[in-house]
Amino acid sequence: VGAEGPAQATAKPSGSSAAYETLLVTTEDNITTILLNRPTKKNAITVEMYNEIVKALELAGKDDSVITVLTGSGDFYCSGNDLNNFTKIPDGGIEKMAKDSGELLRGFVKAFIDFPKPLIGVINGPAVGVSVTLLGLFDVVYATERATFHTPFSQLGQSPEGCSSYTFPKMMGTAKAGEMLLFNKKLTANEACQRGLVTEVFPDSSFQTEVRTRLKAYAQLPRNSLALSKQLVRAVDKERLHAANNQEVERLMERWLSEECMNAIMSFFQARARL
Amino acid sequence: VGAEGPAQATAKPSGSSAAYETLLVTTEDNITTILLNRPTKKNAITVEMYNEIVKALELAGKDDSVITVLTGSGDFYCSGNDLNNFTKIPDGGIEKMAKDSGELLRGFVKAFIDFPKPLIGVINGPAVGVSVTLLGLFDVVYATERATFHTPFSQLGQSPEGCSSYTFPKMMGTAKAGEMLLFNKKLTANEACQRGLVTEVFPDSSFQTEVRTRLKAYAQLPRNSLALSKQLVRAVDKERLHAANNQEVERLMERWLSEECMNAIMSFFQARARL
Amino acid sequence: VGAEGPAQATAKPSGSSAAYETLLVTTEDNITTILLNRPTKKNAITVEMYNEIVKALELAGKDDSVITVLTGSGDFYCSGNDLNNFTKIPDGGIEKMAKDSGELLRGFVKAFIDFPKPLIGVINGPAVGVSVTLLGLFDVVYATERATFHTPFSQLGQSPEGCSSYTFPKMMGTAKAGEMLLFNKKLTANEACQRGLVTEVFPDSSFQTEVRTRLKAYAQLPRNSLALSKQLVRAVDKERLHAANNQEVERLMERWLSEECMNAIMSFFQARARL
Repeated sequence: VGAEGPAQATAKPSGSSAAYETLLVTTEDNITTILLNRPTKKNAITVEMYNEIVKALELAGKDDSVITVLTGSGDFYCSGNDLNNFTKIPDGGIEKMAKDSGELLRGFVKAFIDFPKPLIGVINGPAVGVSVTLLGLFDVVYATERATFHTPFSQLGQSPEGCSSYTFPKMMGTAKAGEMLLFNKKLTANEACQRGLVTEVFPDSSFQTEVRTRLKAYAQLPRNSLALSKQLVRAVDKERLHAANNQEVERLMERWLSEECMNAIMSFFQARARL
Repeated sequence: VGAEGPAQATAKPSGSSAAYETLLVTTEDNITTILLNRPTKKNAITVEMYNEIVKALELAGKDDSVITVLTGSGDFYCSGNDLNNFTKIPDGGIEKMAKDSGELLRGFVKAFIDFPKPLIGVINGPAVGVSVTLLGLFDVVYATERATFHTPFSQLGQSPEGCSSYTFPKMMGTAKAGEMLLFNKKLTANEACQRGLVTEVFPDSSFQTEVRTRLKAYAQLPRNSLALSKQLVRAVDKERLHAANNQEVERLMERWLSEECMNAIMSFFQARARL
Repeated sequence: VGAEGPAQATAKPSGSSAAYETLLVTTEDNITTILLNRPTKKNAITVEMYNEIVKALELAGKDDSVITVLTGSGDFYCSGNDLNNFTKIPDGGIEKMAKDSGELLRGFVKAFIDFPKPLIGVINGPAVGVSVTLLGLFDVVYATERATFHTPFSQLGQSPEGCSSYTFPKMMGTAKAGEMLLFNKKLTANEACQRGLVTEVFPDSSFQTEVRTRLKAYAQLPRNSLALSKQLVRAVDKERLHAANNQEVERLMERWLSEECMNAIMSFFQARARL
């Protein structure tokens, strides 16, 4: 899906005209699809991929498409932040790394908050970390029954991001948000649907077909009406979302320098090395 | 239901003392019932009906009743805005029509935001458009299993109103709100109940009886306690609801002058003429 | 459960070092448990218990525990405000009583809003009134299937508290919040779970064992990460929660002096005396 290449000739630059290392971006049937394309790494988000997603969203927001879709290549949707990002210490030391990582995350989440068209998540498999928390900023989320939703922040000595400190309690109440954001509860697709994180769950065998049919129908609707309606819904929350993003990033920049977090990440790599 | 006529003699003017063309308003058992009474038109809301509902709510807010009920006559609850409202172009042209329609809608929704007593929706059949979005401003909503809930804004080149850009994401999360408000998903009564739009669903055969029993019990509760509790819950959101109403109306006034919307409404009438 | 006594020697005063009349507070396995301990009175909250809970929360927030648990002794979780609190009229008359009760409640709810660590409710049986409304301020709530959730404010001529005028509509939508907060709907544990008030429901036979297993696992997670994540989630809402608490208390202080409320409380005691 989404790999059939550009289908529309447009005056403005289309998402499909850009070259990406970590993504495959295509536009057809009025739909721009951003495909996370590191399937052998479960689509873990590297620094490069953060920057490429921001760029792809910026172009998709301006191109001729009516709706934008984010999905993953292979069996995983996305395994979240690539922890190797934390192993490349720059000249400025880990303080510089924490600051740079914070600014990268802030801009990444901002691109989702400010995205001006309907944004649809097509969750083709397990989702972890920031790829889960960001779903609170999507307009529709379709998931295969194989998908799971996991935000193991405290396990890694970290704290929530992607505006989930605001969107999750708002969506599912604090008692269910706390279980996910504090205590690392992994949800099935159906549980995520009951909690409002997912719009609808499909059998894996018919997932891509059924979703594609709906997306094509949506992309035939009046484009301005859709974009303006989405912006209207977003406007109500925009200020609070930016505030949540900023607070989350500030907290994470502290966390990344904490002993708890360093120990947790070191344990992660030691456990992996032992395999 | 609600057609048995006035049952209480009160010092203050009661809702039942006013004469309406499009409504039947009665007060008995401490319950004021506002019945949408254009059953042959599926209770579509004309300009006159907008004004009469505002008036009926104003009187119900001041009368001796303890709770106020809104319901529909016949098989439909309400088919939403009567699109014939858009065919009567005033002297000032369509700009004047858009402005007048916007002010009419703004005052109509405001009457629901500011309503000072418990307001209960008795959804006796399908509900469309503004009659659905307004439900986010009700204190309790009972529905027959025959009811459906449909907000086809983008199909008509329009955008959400009735504070739904605020209340729907708050109630059901953005992923489920987006499906309804952007992509015209029609809900069954049970789906609406799962999403928090409806309090409880009843079999059609016993709907009126079961609901009436509950309403009578509610209307025996301490009236000041109920009104003050409702106002307390509303106060938390009131400012944001008025802001949402204003933003929605501004957006719609632009939409009504757009080519997308005009084409969509023209298609609607052409399709109907062909039947 | 929670009655095994202190298990940790700590430099700072631990919750377990204080003596309480109405509570049993213990710390073990990095978990401070506050046990409501008036089982013969269904753990109804007296003035003394309000003050002791505030004190216990203050100490638990500072002790070495990672998470804090609130639960009840015996078959009930908590029957809410002890109505005998209203029968001890001080020298200043009922105006003084209403003012004192309001300040007591304000500080009590404030202690939950400001609590700095993960707070987990273990609902071992029926919950009534303020013990229900406060659950919107917990991070996780586990309930036995025997639990029920009841907020009969209007029956007693009163109005909602515990920030429920804000948290309940946010969590479950106004249509379901109204049924509870205005019309005294008593929920089963499963209904409360569907509405987001409860995280998960367990069979009564395995309730304590299953919950204890989870709590022990949670208490092994990085403590700072947990506390800072909880504070991040709370920060988003803190100002609005304090505002809701203040408005609710103001309204209740008026209510307690109203004829409706006095009559309702008098009826309550007359009914009990007749038994």
